[in-house]
Amino acid sequence: MAGGANIHISRAKPGPDLATIIGLIGGFGLLISAIILGGDPLSFINPPSILIVIGGTLAIVTMCFSFSEIVHTVRVLGNTVVMGGQDPSAAAMQVLQVAEMARKQGVLALQNIHEELKSEPFFHKGVSMVIDGTPGEEVESIMRRDMHATTQRHIKSTSVLRKAAEFAPAMGLIGTLIGLVQMLGNLDDPSTIGPSMAVALLTTFYGAVLANMVFSPLAAKLERNSVEEAMVSTVYLMGAASIGRQENPRRLEMLLNSVLPPAKRVRYFD
Amino acid sequence: MAGGANIHISRAKPGPDLATIIGLIGGFGLLISAIILGGDPLSFINPPSILIVIGGTLAIVTMCFSFSEIVHTVRVLGNTVVMGGQDPSAAAMQVLQVAEMARKQGVLALQNIHEELKSEPFFHKGVSMVIDGTPGEEVESIMRRDMHATTQRHIKSTSVLRKAAEFAPAMGLIGTLIGLVQMLGNLDDPSTIGPSMAVALLTTFYGAVLANMVFSPLAAKLERNSVEEAMVSTVYLMGAASIGRQENPRRLEMLLNSVLPPAKRVRYFD
Amino acid sequence: MAGGANIHISRAKPGPDLATIIGLIGGFGLLISAIILGGDPLSFINPPSILIVIGGTLAIVTMCFSFSEIVHTVRVLGNTVVMGGQDPSAAAMQVLQVAEMARKQGVLALQNIHEELKSEPFFHKGVSMVIDGTPGEEVESIMRRDMHATTQRHIKSTSVLRKAAEFAPAMGLIGTLIGLVQMLGNLDDPSTIGPSMAVALLTTFYGAVLANMVFSPLAAKLERNSVEEAMVSTVYLMGAASIGRQENPRRLEMLLNSVLPPAKRVRYFD
Amino acid sequence: MAGGANIHISRAKPGPDLATIIGLIGGFGLLISAIILGGDPLSFINPPSILIVIGGTLAIVTMCFSFSEIVHTVRVLGNTVVMGGQDPSAAAMQVLQVAEMARKQGVLALQNIHEELKSEPFFHKGVSMVIDGTPGEEVESIMRRDMHATTQRHIKSTSVLRKAAEFAPAMGLIGTLIGLVQMLGNLDDPSTIGPSMAVALLTTFYGAVLANMVFSPLAAKLERNSVEEAMVSTVYLMGAASIGRQENPRRLEMLLNSVLPPAKRVRYFD
Amino acid sequence: MAGGANIHISRAKPGPDLATIIGLIGGFGLLISAIILGGDPLSFINPPSILIVIGGTLAIVTMCFSFSEIVHTVRVLGNTVVMGGQDPSAAAMQVLQVAEMARKQGVLALQNIHEELKSEPFFHKGVSMVIDGTPGEEVESIMRRDMHATTQRHIKSTSVLRKAAEFAPAMGLIGTLIGLVQMLGNLDDPSTIGPSMAVALLTTFYGAVLANMVFSPLAAKLERNSVEEAMVSTVYLMGAASIGRQENPRRLEMLLNSVLPPAKRVRYFD
Repeated sequence: MAGGANIHISRAKPGPDLATIIGLIGGFGLLISAIILGGDPLSFINPPSILIVIGGTLAIVTMCFSFSEIVHTVRVLGNTVVMGGQDPSAAAMQVLQVAEMARKQGVLALQNIHEELKSEPFFHKGVSMVIDGTPGEEVESIMRRDMHATTQRHIKSTSVLRKAAEFAPAMGLIGTLIGLVQMLGNLDDPSTIGPSMAVALLTTFYGAVLANMVFSPLAAKLERNSVEEAMVSTVYLMGAASIGRQENPRRLEMLLNSVLPPAKRVRYFD
Repeated sequence: MAGGANIHISRAKPGPDLATIIGLIGGFGLLISAIILGGDPLSFINPPSILIVIGGTLAIVTMCFSFSEIVHTVRVLGNTVVMGGQDPSAAAMQVLQVAEMARKQGVLALQNIHEELKSEPFFHKGVSMVIDGTPGEEVESIMRRDMHATTQRHIKSTSVLRKAAEFAPAMGLIGTLIGLVQMLGNLDDPSTIGPSMAVALLTTFYGAVLANMVFSPLAAKLERNSVEEAMVSTVYLMGAASIGRQENPRRLEMLLNSVLPPAKRVRYFD
Repeated sequence: MAGGANIHISRAKPGPDLATIIGLIGGFGLLISAIILGGDPLSFINPPSILIVIGGTLAIVTMCFSFSEIVHTVRVLGNTVVMGGQDPSAAAMQVLQVAEMARKQGVLALQNIHEELKSEPFFHKGVSMVIDGTPGEEVESIMRRDMHATTQRHIKSTSVLRKAAEFAPAMGLIGTLIGLVQMLGNLDDPSTIGPSMAVALLTTFYGAVLANMVFSPLAAKLERNSVEEAMVSTVYLMGAASIGRQENPRRLEMLLNSVLPPAKRVRYFD
Repeated sequence: MAGGANIHISRAKPGPDLATIIGLIGGFGLLISAIILGGDPLSFINPPSILIVIGGTLAIVTMCFSFSEIVHTVRVLGNTVVMGGQDPSAAAMQVLQVAEMARKQGVLALQNIHEELKSEPFFHKGVSMVIDGTPGEEVESIMRRDMHATTQRHIKSTSVLRKAAEFAPAMGLIGTLIGLVQMLGNLDDPSTIGPSMAVALLTTFYGAVLANMVFSPLAAKLERNSVEEAMVSTVYLMGAASIGRQENPRRLEMLLNSVLPPAKRVRYFD
Repeated sequence: MAGGANIHISRAKPGPDLATIIGLIGGFGLLISAIILGGDPLSFINPPSILIVIGGTLAIVTMCFSFSEIVHTVRVLGNTVVMGGQDPSAAAMQVLQVAEMARKQGVLALQNIHEELKSEPFFHKGVSMVIDGTPGEEVESIMRRDMHATTQRHIKSTSVLRKAAEFAPAMGLIGTLIGLVQMLGNLDDPSTIGPSMAVALLTTFYGAVLANMVFSPLAAKLERNSVEEAMVSTVYLMGAASIGRQENPRRLEMLLNSVLPPAKRVRYFD
C-alpha cells in the first residue's frame, strides 16, 4: 500500500455525524407524528411561547457567558454535527502515506499533495510549516498550542450547552406560570379554561423538548467528540512533527500505535 | 483432587444471572398483577405512547453516543444477563487444574482439553497462545490489553444505560404534555376527559417503568459484574501466563490467592 | 482495678441501639396516631399497594445486586439494631483487664475466662488463637483481614439500603400512576373517584415512608456504626496481638489511647 | 497601647450573632405578616400537623445519629447563635496584651487577670496551664487536641442539621399524603373538602419552613462560624504556647499575622 | 507603537459588561411582553408577594452569612456589571507602554501619567509604590496579597448568590402554600377561587424568575469574570514588579505572554 508520487491521499473524515442527525430527526419525527396523530397540530405552535422559551434561555445564557463564547458554541456545534467525529485510524493511515511519500521523494514533493490536504486544516497547517522548513520541534509546539486552545473552546462550548439545558425547563416553567396566572384571573368564561391551560403548558413542553432532545444530547455528543478529535489532532501533530524531523515512517507507525486505543491501531507497513 | 490426562475440567460459569432475571420477572409480574387486578389491562397498552417513550429515548441516546456504542451495550447486556456474573473461585480452581496438567504432562497435552475450554473464550485464547509456544510475557501483555479494552467497553455501556435511565422519564413527561395539550384543546365533550388523561399519563408511566425497573438496575448490575469479570479475567490471565512460563502450580495458587478477596480464596493443593 | 483470677470481665456491648429503636418506634407512633386521629385507619391498609411497593423495591434491588448481598444486608442490619453501636472505651477496658490477667497468670490462664468472652466473637477468636500458641504477628494479620472483610460487607450493605431508599419512591410513583390510569378510565360513577384516588395515593405514601423513615436512616446509621465498630475491632485486634506478643499491658494502654478519639481515652493503670 | 499591671483586657467576643438572629426574626416576621394579612391566622396552627413534622423529623434524625450527637448539636447551635462568630483580630489584640504583661511582669502576674479571662474558656484554660508551670510544648499539644475535638463536633453537628433539613420536607409530604388519603375517602360532604385540603397542605408548609428557614441556614452558619472559631482558637493556642515558652511578644505578633487573613492582621507594637 | 513622554495611555476596561446587561434586559423584556400581551399586567404585581419572596430570601441569606459578606456581594456585583470583564490583552499593552516609558524616561517620569492610571486602581497602586521607591519584590508581594484577598471575596460573593438562587424558589413555594391554605379555607364564594389561586402562584413565579433570571446567571458570570479579573491583575502585578525591578520591557512582554492564553497574547515591540 506504499504510495507513489501521484497517490490519492485517503480522507480521514467520514462525513456528517449520522448518529446525531438520525437521532435528532428520529426524535422530532416521533414527536411530530404523535402530535399529528392526536389531531390539530397547529395547537402546538404558539409564537409567543416559542419566543419566551428560546429567547429567555438565550438571554440567560448570554448573561452567564460572553457573546463570543456563544457564537463559538454555535460554530463548534455546526462543525461537530456536519463533519462528524473523525476516525483516528483513517487519520493515522493518511499520515503514514504522507510520511512515506516525504521519506521517498523528499519533503518538497509534499507540495504536490498540498492542495488535497486542505480538507484537514490542522494537518494542512502542519505540513505547510514543514514544507516552509520550520523545524520539527517548532511545528510540534505550535500545533500543540493550537490543539490545547481547541480543547478549551470545546469545554467552554459544552458548558454553554449544559447551561442552556439547565435553564430551558426553567423558562418553560416561568412561561407556564405566566399563563396560569392570566387564566386564573379570567375564570368567568369556562369555555376558555381548556385552551388557556393548553397554551400555558406549551412553554413547559418547549422547555422539556429543548433541554432533553436538543441541548443535553448535543452537550454529551460534543464532549464525546472532543475526546476523539483530540486523538485525531494528536495523530496529525505527531505525523507533521515526525515528517519535519525526517524520521523513519516505521518509527512513526510505532509511535502512533502507542497513543491509539487497541481497537484503532493501524498496520501500514507489511 | 490432582487430575489425570482425561480430567473433566470444571466449569467456571454458574449459568445465567438469576438475581437479574428473577428481579426483572418479579418486578414486572407484580406490575402486571396490579394492572390485571384493577381490571381492563388493555387500557395500559397504547402503541403510540410506547413508541414515543422507547423510540424517543433511543433517539436521544443515539444522539449522545455512536451506533457502535449502542450495539455494544446491547451485546454486553445480553452477556451479563445470560451468562451471569462469574465466580472467581471456580475460575481459579479450573486454572489450577489446567496448570497442574500442563506441569505433569507437558504443555502440548493441553491440546486434549483445548476443545473443552471454548466455553471460557478468554482463557481459551490464552491457552491457545501457550500451546502455540508464545512466551509467557507476551501472553500476559496481549491478554492484559484485551482485558483493558473490555473494561473500557463496559464503562461505556454503563454510561449508555445511565443516559437511557435519565432520558426515559423526560420522554415520558414530553409525551404526557402532548396528551394534556391535546385534551385541553377539546374539553367540549366531558366524557372524553378521563380516557384522554389516562392515555396522557401512560407515557409518564412507561418512562418511570423503563428508567427504574429496567435501565437503572441494569446499569448498576453491569457496573457490579464488570468488577467481578475483571477479577475472573485476571485469574485466567495469571493462569495462562504462569503456564506459559512453566511455573510451579503451587506458586500460581499463592499468586491467585493474593488477588482474590478473602471469601473467594482457594485451596487446591493439600 | 487490677483483677485477679476470678475477675468478672466487663462487657463492651451496651445492648440494643436505643436511638434507632426509639426513633423507629417514635416515628411510626406519630404516623399511626395521625392516621387514627383522622378516623378510619383501615383505609391506609391496602395489600396490593403494599405488595407493589415493597415487592417492587425488593425486585429492583435484587436486580442491582446478588442474593447473597441482600441476605448479608438484612443480617448486618439486625446486628446493628439489636446489638447497637459498641463503646470503644468499654472494649479497651475489657482488653486491658484480659491483658493484665495474661501478664500476671500466664496466657493459659485465659482459658478460665474463655467462655465469658464468647459475647464478643471477634475478641474471642483472637484470644483463642493466642491460647493455641499462634504468634502475635499472625494473630494480627488474620484479624486485620477479617476486619477488612467486615468493613467491605458494611459498605456493600449501606449501598443496598441506599438503592432501596432510591427506588421505593419510584415504585410508589409507578403504583400511583397505575391507580390514576385505572381511575381515569372509569369516571362514569363520580362517587368512586375519591376512594380510587385515595388508593392510588397510598403507594406514593408507602414509598415515601419506606424511603425516608426506614431505608435512608438505617443506611445512615449503618454507615455511622461501621466506623465505630471498626474502632472497637481495632481495639480487640491490638489487644489480642499484644497479649500474643506478651507485651507489657501498660504499653498496650498507651497504644490503645493513641487510636482512640480524645473523649474515649481510658486510664486503667493508676 | 502597651498595658500596665491593671490593664483592662479587651474582650474578643462581639456578643450574639446578629445576622442569624435578625435573619430569623425578619424571615418569620414576613411569614407571620403574610399570614395575618390574609386573615384567620389560626388556620395555620394545627397541633397534630406540627407534631408529625417536628416529631417525625426528630425521630428520623435520632435514627441516623445517637442521642449524644443530637444533644451536642443543640448546645453547639445555642453557642453559635448566642455568642456569635468571634473576631480573630480582637482575640489577637487580647493575646498580645496578655503576652506583653507576662513579659514585663512575669508569668505569675497573670494571676491578676486570670478571673477576667474566664469569658474566653479556651484561652483561660491555656493561661491556667502556663501559670501552673506547664511547658509551652505541652500546653500547645493539649490545646491542639481540644481544638481538633471541637472541630469534629462541629462537623457532626452540621451534618445533623443537614439531615434535619433533608427529612423535614419528606415528613411534610408524608403528612400531606395522610391528609389527602383521609380527605379523598370522605368526599360526600363537599363543604369539608377545602378545609381538609388546607390542613393537609399545612404539613408541607411546616416542612418547607423548617428546612429552608431554620435547618438549612443554621447548618450553613454553623459551618461558616466553625472556620472562624478555629481561627480564633488558633490565635489563643499560639498565644498561650508563646507565653509558656516566654518568647518575645513582638515575635508572637509576627506569628499571629502569618495565620490571620490579610483583612484581620493586627498591629499592636508601634 | 513605542510612546513618548506625552503618550496617551490606552484604557484596559471596555466599559460595562454588555452581555450581562443585554441578557438581563432581553430576558425581562420578553417576560414583560408576554405579560402585557396576555392583558392586565397589573395582576402580576402583588406587593405582599414580592415582599415575602425578596425579603424572605434576603433573610435566609443573612442567616447563612454575615452582614459584611452580603454588602460585599452587592458591591462586587455592581463592579462586575458596570465595569464588565476586563481584557487582559489591553491591560498587557497598557503595562508595556508604561514600562517602556519608565525605561526611557526613568521611573519618576511616571508621575506625569499617574493621574491617568487612576481608572485602574490596582495598577495605580502598584505604580505609586514604584514611584515611592518601594523595591520590586515588595511591590509584588503586597499586590499578590491584595489579589488573593480579592479572589477570596469573589468566591464568597459567588456563594452568597448561589444560596440566594437556592432559597428564592423555596420562599416562592412557601408563599404559594400560604396562599393555597388561605384560599382553601374560604371556598364559599367560588368566584374568588381563580384570583386567589393566581395570587398564590405569584410567589412561585417571583421565586423562579429571581433564581433563574437573576441570581443564578449573575453567580455564573461573577465566577467567570473572577477568573478573567485575576488574569488582568496578574498582568498589572507583573508589570509593576518589573518596572520596580527596572527590567527590560521586552523581557516583560515575554513574561506576560507566558501567562496570557494563546488568543490573548500581545506583540508590542516590533
